[in-house]
Amino acid sequence: MASHGFWFLGAENAAGNGSQSPNTPRAWCQAAAQKFSGGIGSKLCALLNVGEAEKAAQAPVKAEDESTAESCGCNKPCNCSKATACFSDLYSTDLLPALDGDAKTMNFLQEVVDILLAYIVESFDRSTKVIDFHYPNELLQRNNWELSDEPETLDDILISCRATLKYAIKTAHPRYFNQLSTGLDMVGLAADWLTSTANTNMFTYEVAPVFVLLEYVTLKKMREIIGWQDGHGDGIFSPGGAISNMYAMLLARYKMFPEVKEKGMSSVPRLVAFTSEHSHFSIKKGAAALGIGTESVICIKADERGKMIPSDLERRIIEAKQKGYVPFFVSATAGTTVYGAFDPLIAIADICKKHDVWMHVDGAWGGSLLMSRKHRWKLNGVERANSMTWNPHKMMAVPLQCSALLVREEGLMQSCNQMQACYLFQQDKHYDLQYDTGDKALQCGRHVDIFKLWLMWRAKGTIGFEAQIDKCLELSEYLYNKIKDREGYQMVFDGKPQHTNVCFWYLPPGVRYLEDKVERMKRLHKVAPVIKARMMEYGTTMVSYQPQGDKVNFFRMVISNPAATFEDIDFLIEEIERLGQDL
Amino acid sequence: MASHGFWFLGAENAAGNGSQSPNTPRAWCQAAAQKFSGGIGSKLCALLNVGEAEKAAQAPVKAEDESTAESCGCNKPCNCSKATACFSDLYSTDLLPALDGDAKTMNFLQEVVDILLAYIVESFDRSTKVIDFHYPNELLQRNNWELSDEPETLDDILISCRATLKYAIKTAHPRYFNQLSTGLDMVGLAADWLTSTANTNMFTYEVAPVFVLLEYVTLKKMREIIGWQDGHGDGIFSPGGAISNMYAMLLARYKMFPEVKEKGMSSVPRLVAFTSEHSHFSIKKGAAALGIGTESVICIKADERGKMIPSDLERRIIEAKQKGYVPFFVSATAGTTVYGAFDPLIAIADICKKHDVWMHVDGAWGGSLLMSRKHRWKLNGVERANSMTWNPHKMMAVPLQCSALLVREEGLMQSCNQMQACYLFQQDKHYDLQYDTGDKALQCGRHVDIFKLWLMWRAKGTIGFEAQIDKCLELSEYLYNKIKDREGYQMVFDGKPQHTNVCFWYLPPGVRYLEDKVERMKRLHKVAPVIKARMMEYGTTMVSYQPQGDKVNFFRMVISNPAATFEDIDFLIEEIERLGQDL
Repeated sequence: MASHGFWFLGAENAAGNGSQSPNTPRAWCQAAAQKFSGGIGSKLCALLNVGEAEKAAQAPVKAEDESTAESCGCNKPCNCSKATACFSDLYSTDLLPALDGDAKTMNFLQEVVDILLAYIVESFDRSTKVIDFHYPNELLQRNNWELSDEPETLDDILISCRATLKYAIKTAHPRYFNQLSTGLDMVGLAADWLTSTANTNMFTYEVAPVFVLLEYVTLKKMREIIGWQDGHGDGIFSPGGAISNMYAMLLARYKMFPEVKEKGMSSVPRLVAFTSEHSHFSIKKGAAALGIGTESVICIKADERGKMIPSDLERRIIEAKQKGYVPFFVSATAGTTVYGAFDPLIAIADICKKHDVWMHVDGAWGGSLLMSRKHRWKLNGVERANSMTWNPHKMMAVPLQCSALLVREEGLMQSCNQMQACYLFQQDKHYDLQYDTGDKALQCGRHVDIFKLWLMWRAKGTIGFEAQIDKCLELSEYLYNKIKDREGYQMVFDGKPQHTNVCFWYLPPGVRYLEDKVERMKRLHKVAPVIKARMMEYGTTMVSYQPQGDKVNFFRMVISNPAATFEDIDFLIEEIERLGQDL
Repeated sequence: MASHGFWFLGAENAAGNGSQSPNTPRAWCQAAAQKFSGGIGSKLCALLNVGEAEKAAQAPVKAEDESTAESCGCNKPCNCSKATACFSDLYSTDLLPALDGDAKTMNFLQEVVDILLAYIVESFDRSTKVIDFHYPNELLQRNNWELSDEPETLDDILISCRATLKYAIKTAHPRYFNQLSTGLDMVGLAADWLTSTANTNMFTYEVAPVFVLLEYVTLKKMREIIGWQDGHGDGIFSPGGAISNMYAMLLARYKMFPEVKEKGMSSVPRLVAFTSEHSHFSIKKGAAALGIGTESVICIKADERGKMIPSDLERRIIEAKQKGYVPFFVSATAGTTVYGAFDPLIAIADICKKHDVWMHVDGAWGGSLLMSRKHRWKLNGVERANSMTWNPHKMMAVPLQCSALLVREEGLMQSCNQMQACYLFQQDKHYDLQYDTGDKALQCGRHVDIFKLWLMWRAKGTIGFEAQIDKCLELSEYLYNKIKDREGYQMVFDGKPQHTNVCFWYLPPGVRYLEDKVERMKRLHKVAPVIKARMMEYGTTMVSYQPQGDKVNFFRMVISNPAATFEDIDFLIEEIERLGQDL
């Protein structure tokens, strides 16, 4: 474990290389203000308020000397925003639906949008920080986040918006690589703003006519891409890959034992599910929730590249049958979380067919490769699956959250989940009830996650998504080629990664030449956490690390960020070396 | 079942009363353009494009005569928007992260915002339609909604945005009463736009530092309001009330039989849950999913007001025990979906204590009454519950979706749901890991639902929410008083409603005086669906109807829309009579 003392060791020294550290907010602000003229320039003025927020945050008691704030390049002392002038006497009750609230509402929302537009432009600027990191207790103290009985003015609300963004992760930043979901798509964002404005849910056609149709159109298109004939089948957009996987397990169980819906697990024999040891933890979470139990999830061995070994799968299925258990569900992974491995789907499909087991493909991360003519072969066999999880919010960079479960058999979701509550799903409506999709979901109201994917698809076309995905894979290959033989690096597994996951150790000089193997591993285990902590402290970039099995902490670089370039990959390597050289 | 022929019967006649039908889009457009001057006026020009969208939609092939569109009051023939001029040569690839994409991005997003602002202002205008309804097949044909390989221009994307809004339900409309979630809060909307822009999830403190803290602060506040000492306990924001209820059931089961997590339901005795016959269908859905089975959910009798009868609960618990079953979960409802009934929580708490059963309160709909000093007595006893579902997206009008599960015992969610995947939740991070909330959820990534609630709470204060809630209850009392003795109306249950649910039949003259009781019920059953269909056809208002038990279709009016006024209640009654008089 890295103590605070340890991780800070040498930080001053590391910071010495000032050329890579981001500019101060003020300097950035000046540059931004000079960059534009006219309307755009005035919008950028709102950026100055990001600096303001810091001041406000540092002084929870309202600063009295606001008017004396220093000028920072936009004529006036940071009151270029209308906020202070207009909103300090207004409350939310002055906005719509208040009488004559139209103009005030538009002014207020426009002010918020100005803050957001400035944040967006700033987020893509490599000279800004990815994160302005503070420890939880410190962040709690830097602002007043408490809820009180009394209302605040709209001015205070705008200050809260600025403070929130100031301490947020800039997920759009070209050097943000921390999660499988990174980047910010402008059309997707516009679509999400529209979704919020429409403020409805996916319950029935009655309350979401367009969105229900768009879900229908999009799911069909996704099923065609999987390769199911004429796009037939079913599906749903669910709140994330874990829930999509849980849906699949629920359907597999119901398909084999429909009586489980009424009678529960006590009416069926002991069921067992199979997934690789490298699969996502949601398979076990699902089994725990569904009353199957985590011990009934049998972990199949993976090879050194993280792919499920089909012969081990078959062996374990036969073994389970011999014990009198009923194999009901195999979850193959297309793109594992850490290694980015693709399980061999054709071989797995053969085994599932032979043993009559539901085949699910967890393609939350790797499913999007189906959009690429160059890479979709990695999912060959997926067309034989009974169900598939595919998260457009990962590799396709659709804003969070957007996860689809696709199901080959039509009608199964409905019969598995419906409760036919007549007070919710009236059967005597005047339109075609097949569009009332609410009863096939576990949820009652369901968030509208479809519009951002649909609108992005319209804007990019399938070929646009393909280009975006191919570029990320190209970048990861570039990274792999760059470090595979570089001094101080060691790859976690051999060979070119199949997805954008590049897993590697960085061995600082102090560790590199250690002869004591145990001591070396012990020291190496601490390297990635310290470098990561320093990345966050400087805010220059973010990348994930973790141990796996008996392997000590290593970096897992993933690229789903459409803003990333070859230079950003170069930067990452330089930054790791800069921050880790003294360890 | 109402045939098309039947529901259209007399429509021409009903439409004769032209004074209440909404103005045409063009007329509205003219009025709006005259209402404002300066900046706001120019923004409103975007409204004209709503009309444009209709044209575009009716002619999927791009109209060539766009320039000949008629003028409608804003100087130029509907090309006051910059859209056509600027965006017809641009694609999404011209936006950020494209080099020099800043200005184009800001222009594009501003254009989208102009469309949204216009839509918002229009939504609150009573002279506009709540919905421009089309049957699914018709709507599919009114526009090209298909996804293709090739990209579209940003101009086309803006047209799609306008078309989507044109056919959307205006959930902000003061006369939209269809769901438990209605209305559109301006601060909540601003917060949701910010949330989309921040584009992160609630996985760890690392990727959502502010949002994780705000969830912590807000859940604590909600627990204080429930009455749990010092706000101690646990909780999570989940994707809707159904999932919150499922979480509660999962926790109750784990609390009693922790081995169920590993060993599944086959390791435990037969569990039974209890809820009233008027409770939400998600209790049964949850039981089906969790492997408990719907037959193990015992429905307790409700009185004529829809409240659970405690003596029947105790009787059924004892009966279950005698059969050797294990009662593990009672879900009391605070605000039932149809009647708005509050189960007697104190009596239920006594029974749960006596029999050592987990007490859950499904306050998805009624929980928000805790914010009102005048109405919170209806939930007396809730402080004795083990868990509570409370959806701020319903009665508090927080944008969808925002549902909280509150749990009295701290740490239980974590131990119930955690899988300790070290590759996701590294234990050697440099900050306090109690803020990495991801592993206590069923989901992996979790959408940020907290910011809109938090920001609204700051803007309104607790007293602002209280005033909003009290006003809705006052409106429903007004409606109740208005119709309870009015000719042609019959209440579904006697006495003043406890929540804003007012359930009633409207008996048109043709039904009112029918002597044949069977025939009368048969005819009455068809009245609400026909009136509802006509409401949607005219777009004047929307209210829900359903049968319940042996009661034929009745209207269930609910008021959660902060935009509604006494006049809107008057309008609703007049509209029902206008649309139903000929039936």
